Amino acid sequence: MKRFLNLTAAAAFCASVPAFAQEAKTYPAPSEIVAAAKAQEWAAIAPSDLLVMDLAPDAAGKPRRVVIQLMPAPFSQGWIGNIRKLATAKWWDGTSINRVQDNYVVQWGDATEKKALPDGLEVVPESGYTAPLVDPFASMLLFSAIVGQKEAEDACKRESEDKISDCFKEIDRQITRRDPYGDIYGFYKGWPAGADPKTAWPLHCYGMVGVGRNLSPDTGTGAELYTVIGHAPRHLDRNIALVGRVIEGIEHLSSLPRGTGALGFYEKEEERVPILSVRLGTEVQNAPSFEYLYTQTPSFKAYADARANRRDPFFITPAGGADICNIPVPVRRRPAK
Amino acid sequence: MKRFLNLTAAAAFCASVPAFAQEAKTYPAPSEIVAAAKAQEWAAIAPSDLLVMDLAPDAAGKPRRVVIQLMPAPFSQGWIGNIRKLATAKWWDGTSINRVQDNYVVQWGDATEKKALPDGLEVVPESGYTAPLVDPFASMLLFSAIVGQKEAEDACKRESEDKISDCFKEIDRQITRRDPYGDIYGFYKGWPAGADPKTAWPLHCYGMVGVGRNLSPDTGTGAELYTVIGHAPRHLDRNIALVGRVIEGIEHLSSLPRGTGALGFYEKEEERVPILSVRLGTEVQNAPSFEYLYTQTPSFKAYADARANRRDPFFITPAGGADICNIPVPVRRRPAK
Repeated sequence: MKRFLNLTAAAAFCASVPAFAQEAKTYPAPSEIVAAAKAQEWAAIAPSDLLVMDLAPDAAGKPRRVVIQLMPAPFSQGWIGNIRKLATAKWWDGTSINRVQDNYVVQWGDATEKKALPDGLEVVPESGYTAPLVDPFASMLLFSAIVGQKEAEDACKRESEDKISDCFKEIDRQITRRDPYGDIYGFYKGWPAGADPKTAWPLHCYGMVGVGRNLSPDTGTGAELYTVIGHAPRHLDRNIALVGRVIEGIEHLSSLPRGTGALGFYEKEEERVPILSVRLGTEVQNAPSFEYLYTQTPSFKAYADARANRRDPFFITPAGGADICNIPVPVRRRPAK
Repeated sequence: MKRFLNLTAAAAFCASVPAFAQEAKTYPAPSEIVAAAKAQEWAAIAPSDLLVMDLAPDAAGKPRRVVIQLMPAPFSQGWIGNIRKLATAKWWDGTSINRVQDNYVVQWGDATEKKALPDGLEVVPESGYTAPLVDPFASMLLFSAIVGQKEAEDACKRESEDKISDCFKEIDRQITRRDPYGDIYGFYKGWPAGADPKTAWPLHCYGMVGVGRNLSPDTGTGAELYTVIGHAPRHLDRNIALVGRVIEGIEHLSSLPRGTGALGFYEKEEERVPILSVRLGTEVQNAPSFEYLYTQTPSFKAYADARANRRDPFFITPAGGADICNIPVPVRRRPAK
């Protein structure tokens, strides 16, 4: 019976959302909120945190450049250190895209699996898949309490006197339980992350870049990389190292022909798109510079709330919540000063 | 303070999962559970519920066929009736793929927006986005209570005497709150659906097919269709009609070049892949026949639990839950008798 009461309380909240939406047809779209963000709400991405991958030109001779942003500490720094060494050693030059599995991943590296690795790569333990949960992560709790909360509170305020208290209790119960994969989630330094009371870890959202590995206890070196091109495979969280995300040019990977071998691996040499070069941003001539919207700013919170409760004219029923992978962190080229 | 206690209880559950995984390295992978399902656990898909779309051959001259399964009642039957009329009238023949937006949708129909529609199409009201919640939907509650529950109960059984009762209370609290988009979700007749105590609706998972529309109160006719090729855009649930899902050949859509116009629309005529024909399965010579795994069978429940708690050898930390769009309903060609 308790469960039925919970559902009823939640239903009162859901049912009242459309009415709210009708009152508020003038709310801006998430993209409009981002476009209106103040200059100081954007954080520059250091060129040393960019990995620039140039693929062979396409059939029409057009260049194909993919730009990856590497993660900040405390996430995956062992693997990221290896990736910096591999890029500096030009190790990926002449390797290829070897696997394209629909609704899953695109993977690249040495198809022969025989190319010698540079010296000095770190063997990172599985404990590196998570980071200790320290004070700054508390901001994630704040964030996860905010998505959908305003919508729910507005709904409760329209309840009758005798129901208001239960309604707010229901919100308190809901705002800490909005992800099937964990109790705490949010954004840390601009990255989607999950946490339990002791550790935190990055999440496998669309475009995230991870480190291929063999069976445990192997954790991979960073020489074999993949990016997510489908629905977030969150079951990989805490099972593989995530090291970054594609911030420009993902279409050069996501639109490649799917591989016909097991797991989407290409079966023929000629199917593999050659990788011309992979460099750190500091080693690329005229590398574009990028910035991301700080995730603890008013504009990001308004953007996240709008993603969770679409009220722009196309929408008639705001969802009242959002999967964290459906709240992509805005990244753009840095406007010329 | 209450929230902190909730998180602690949940942490006890999460923390004990890896230990469980190590005890049980011999668990089958989800794909192995599906492969071992009994013949009677599979449901045949009627040819009259198939929509077969043949695109112009690719650059290498290879045919490109996309097969869509239409939804059963009570979902979206007004639009699906229109789609049957449009297919019978061969209305889509000579139309094209007009929009490919990365991590979102592929859309097709009449690029000129001037082609006359057949007579007798129904104008479906917005109330058609949801269906009344009737008894059979109760099975969805059962399902949503099952994903992740076994894992959590095993964890609780290893708690000390004084903690066991709180641990099971925590499970009871969690199993009705495992989706940011609503309180009840699960599978109905093989389709992912959300529900509140009064209505139910299909979900925008990868590969789902929906009906393009203009601003409310327009609901679209069914002549303009799209399929999801990225992370589930669940904010569209209850805002657009879903009518089916791609069950074969989605790679012919998801790997198309992304459009460079606004919303991923192609800007040039020559970028649009021509649609040769769209027919109901009953009107196609030698149409392949398909079947899906009944979602109320022991094999489906074992598959769903395995998707939520990967214990096959590659994995070291089962998630303890799964986004419903990360539990795709198994569909396959029907084996020859």
